[in-house]
Amino acid sequence: MSQFEFTHRRKNPLTGNWVLVSPHRNNRPWLGATEKSAPSNLPEHDETCPLCPGNQRANDTHNPDYDKTFVFTNDFGALTPHVAEQAAQFETNPLFEIEAATGECRVICFSPKHNKTLPELPVNEIKDVVDTWKQHYVELSAQYACVHIFENKGAVMGCSQPHPHGQVWAHNHLSTEIQLEQASQYQYQQTHGSNLLADYVKREIADGERVVYQNDHWLVVVPFWAAWPFETLLVSKDDVRHFGQLTEAQSTALADAIKVLTTRYDNVFNCSFPYSMGWHCAPSDLDDDSHWRMHAHFYPPLLRSATVKKHMVGYEMLAESQRDLSPETAAKILKNASDVHYTEGNQ
Amino acid sequence: MSQFEFTHRRKNPLTGNWVLVSPHRNNRPWLGATEKSAPSNLPEHDETCPLCPGNQRANDTHNPDYDKTFVFTNDFGALTPHVAEQAAQFETNPLFEIEAATGECRVICFSPKHNKTLPELPVNEIKDVVDTWKQHYVELSAQYACVHIFENKGAVMGCSQPHPHGQVWAHNHLSTEIQLEQASQYQYQQTHGSNLLADYVKREIADGERVVYQNDHWLVVVPFWAAWPFETLLVSKDDVRHFGQLTEAQSTALADAIKVLTTRYDNVFNCSFPYSMGWHCAPSDLDDDSHWRMHAHFYPPLLRSATVKKHMVGYEMLAESQRDLSPETAAKILKNASDVHYTEGNQ
Ligand SMILES: O=P(O)(O)O[C@H]1O[C@H](CO)[C@@H](O)[C@H](O)[C@H]1O
Ligand SMILES: O=P(O)(O)O[C@H]1O[C@H](CO)[C@@H](O)[C@H](O)[C@H]1O
Repeated sequence: MSQFEFTHRRKNPLTGNWVLVSPHRNNRPWLGATEKSAPSNLPEHDETCPLCPGNQRANDTHNPDYDKTFVFTNDFGALTPHVAEQAAQFETNPLFEIEAATGECRVICFSPKHNKTLPELPVNEIKDVVDTWKQHYVELSAQYACVHIFENKGAVMGCSQPHPHGQVWAHNHLSTEIQLEQASQYQYQQTHGSNLLADYVKREIADGERVVYQNDHWLVVVPFWAAWPFETLLVSKDDVRHFGQLTEAQSTALADAIKVLTTRYDNVFNCSFPYSMGWHCAPSDLDDDSHWRMHAHFYPPLLRSATVKKHMVGYEMLAESQRDLSPETAAKILKNASDVHYTEGNQ
Repeated sequence: MSQFEFTHRRKNPLTGNWVLVSPHRNNRPWLGATEKSAPSNLPEHDETCPLCPGNQRANDTHNPDYDKTFVFTNDFGALTPHVAEQAAQFETNPLFEIEAATGECRVICFSPKHNKTLPELPVNEIKDVVDTWKQHYVELSAQYACVHIFENKGAVMGCSQPHPHGQVWAHNHLSTEIQLEQASQYQYQQTHGSNLLADYVKREIADGERVVYQNDHWLVVVPFWAAWPFETLLVSKDDVRHFGQLTEAQSTALADAIKVLTTRYDNVFNCSFPYSMGWHCAPSDLDDDSHWRMHAHFYPPLLRSATVKKHMVGYEMLAESQRDLSPETAAKILKNASDVHYTEGNQ
C-alpha cells in the first residue's frame, strides 16, 4: 500500500488547480449510468465514413486515395480565418470582455484503415502520425501563436467518427490553459532558475513510483496532481519546447512511447480505452521560450471497467476535481499492464 | 438575429477563464454518441431505493418515514472529519504540493417521493428544500470555511440514484473555484469600489437580452460568459452573501425562481433536463465579505435534443471551453419556454 492512502489535496503546478484525492471512495457501489463500449467489428473500409480514402465528404469533395495519413480543413471548424468586423464596436467593460477570434481547424486521419486505432498501428505508422503532427505544427505556428494538436478517442469523449483521427486548432490568442501553463513555467524559472518540467522529470525518474514507461527521449508518468483516474503526462526528457525542434530520433522514440502507453491503456480493461489527449507547446511568438518543455496530457475517463467512467460533475465543476484512487495506484496498474495488445490474444 | 453571430471569445470575470463562441457551428451534423433519457415511469416509492422513506441504507441503517426533506451523512463521502497524520510528514516542494483534507459530506433528499424532481414539486415544497439548504449551511459554516451545496441531476451527470436529492460537502480549505471567485470579487471591489455581481445584475436587467426570469429578489440570466449551452446564473438581487442571511421573503422568492427555471429547462426538449447546479457563498472565515454575492450556477449539458449533449473534451480540456450557440440565443429559447411543465400536457 502506498503512503498516500488518506484523504488529501494536491496542487497542479502547471495550472494552479487543486485536486481532492479520496482513495477510500473507490469502494462505493456504482448503480449509475454505464457507457457503451466501442464496437470491435468495424470494417477496414466503410463506404459511409467521410474520413475513409476515396469517400465523399461534406461540400461534395472527395478524399484522395491516401495510404499513410491525410489532413483536411474541418468542414465545420470552430475557427475560421475570416475576421469579424463587429467585435471592434463593443465597449470595454471588465464584466463584458469580448474579442473576435480567428484561426484554422484541421482534421488529421491517422491511417487509411477505418478500424485501426493508434495502439493497433505498427510503430512506423505511428511515426507517420508524429511526422504529420510536426509538419502541420511547423506550418501553422509560422502563422499562429497557439497551435493545439489533440485527439478525442471514443464516443464517450465526443468523438463523432470512429475512423482514427485527431485535430489541430490554431489561433493567435493564447487559450486559457496555455496562458496558465505559460505563466506557471515562466514564474517557476524566475524563482528557481531552472525549468519546471525538467525538474519534475528528474524527480519522477529518481522516485520511480509514478513512472509508467520511459525510453531514451520520453517519460510517461501519472502526474502527482492527476485529476482523471488514469491520467498521464507524456513529456520530453530533452530540452524540447515544441514540435518544430523534434529530431528524427526523438520522433521515433515518441512513436514508441505512444505505442506502449496506448496499448497498456487498452489492456487495463480489455477495451478500446477512450481518452482526450493533446499537446502543449511553447507559444510561437515568445522571444524566449526556455521555460517551456513540450508535453502531452492524456485524460481518459474510465474508472472501474470498460463501461463505468468517472463523472466530473457537481463538486468537480463547482469546486475542484476529485479522484477516487490515488495516482500511485493508477501508476501501478499501468506499469503492470501488458505491452501486447489484448486483441492479439497473448495476455 | 443577435449582434454576436460571429466567432469570438468572452471572459468569465469570476474565474478568469475564457470561452470560445462559434455560433455557426451549431449547423454541423451529429453522428456521435447519444444519451439515454431519464425513465418517466418511476414509482412514487421504490422498495430498492436507499433514499426512499423507511428503506434500508448501507451499514444496516434505516431511513425514517420522512415527509418533507431528509438529510444524512454520505455513506461513501469523499471527505470525513478524520485527520490524517501522514500529511504532516511530507517535504515542501512546489512540484509536489500536498495537504491533508477533512470535512463532511451529506445527502439531502428533496422529497419522500421517488419520482418527483424539483420542477415537479409545488413551490412550498421547493421552499422546504431551500430551508433545508439554509439550515445545513448555517450548521456546517459554523465549523467549516467552505460549504458546497449542489445537485447532480440525471444519469448523464453522474447521478447514481434517481430519487431527487442533492449534496453538501463542507471543508476548511477553500476549493479552487471559491478561491478564484474570492480573488476576482475582492479585486473588482478594490479596483471599482463596488460589488462585481451587484454591478453585473444591474447591467443585465437594464439590457434584458440575456435575462431568463426575475422576481423581487432573484435574477436568472444566461451569463455573458456561459460555457455550457444552456448555462444559467441564479443570483440574488439583494446584498446577500450566503445562505445564513436569507430572509423568509428571499427564501420564498428563491423557491419561485427555481420552480420557473427548472420547469423551463424541462420544457426546452420535453424531457427531464439533466444538470449539475450548485451554490457559491462567501467563505465563512472572512472578516469582511462585502465583495461577495450569493449565487448558483446551473451547468446543463444538453445541446440539440434530449439525447445529444455538448461534449467538453479535447479542445475544451486542453485549451478552453467552446460553445456552439450564442448565450443570447440560449437566453431567447429559455425566455420563450413555457412555465407549465410539459408533463402537465398544457403546451
Ligand atoms: O456522490 P455521488 O452522487 O455518488 O457521485 C457523483 O457526484 C460526485 C460529486 O460531484 C462525483 O464525484 C461523482 O463522480 C459522481 O458520480
Ligand atoms: O469536432 P468534433 O470531433 O466533431 O467535436 C468534438 O470535439 C470538439 C473539440 O474538442 C468538441 O468541441 C465537440 O464538443 C466534440 O464533440
